[in-house]
Amino acid sequence: MTLEVPQVFKYHIFTCSTKRPAGHPRGSCMERGAQPLWERLGQKLEAKQLPGVSMTMTGCLSFCQAGPLMVVYPEGIWYHPEKPEDIDEIVQSHFVEGNPVERLIIVPQR
Amino acid sequence: MTLEVPQVFKYHIFTCSTKRPAGHPRGSCMERGAQPLWERLGQKLEAKQLPGVSMTMTGCLSFCQAGPLMVVYPEGIWYHPEKPEDIDEIVQSHFVEGNPVERLIIVPQR
Repeated sequence: MTLEVPQVFKYHIFTCSTKRPAGHPRGSCMERGAQPLWERLGQKLEAKQLPGVSMTMTGCLSFCQAGPLMVVYPEGIWYHPEKPEDIDEIVQSHFVEGNPVERLIIVPQR
Repeated sequence: MTLEVPQVFKYHIFTCSTKRPAGHPRGSCMERGAQPLWERLGQKLEAKQLPGVSMTMTGCLSFCQAGPLMVVYPEGIWYHPEKPEDIDEIVQSHFVEGNPVERLIIVPQR
């Protein structure tokens, strides 16, 4: 059965906020530098007040070695940003202009 | 620009685990009885080992009055389960058989 439902959000952004202790074999997005990136993302979105864009913090997204990780649904686009400028580019290009940032997209695998 | 990317998960389930203190004006999914439901969901999924199905805990999904809330992407289907039997039905009907459970679907609004 295919069921078409109205989409609540145009871009629902999920950001991994998992933090494991230093030296943990799996590592974690927070250990890999996620916190300042997600803070910047939150600030940018707050400032722009884009309609239909929401950001939700999450627990582990399952691909710790690929962190920092965020995923944008319903498109299902996964990003691995590394620098504040990456966040700025994703916000402007993807969420404002509708053009995903291909150089920062990954397809994570276990 | 439309960008088609491979979907990492067929069903990526996000469950709100926000807990606010008793009496908080916004309430929270945990205050509304989410915890045993998400535990049951996790146990069912663990037992069935369905390929392409993943469950991620989240912070606030923005619609506290509608909790307990979970959303399934990339479909963008939001569920408001209330009883353990609701979880069992969602797992079997939606994630095993591919038929969303219409009676439990909501389209949350602020």
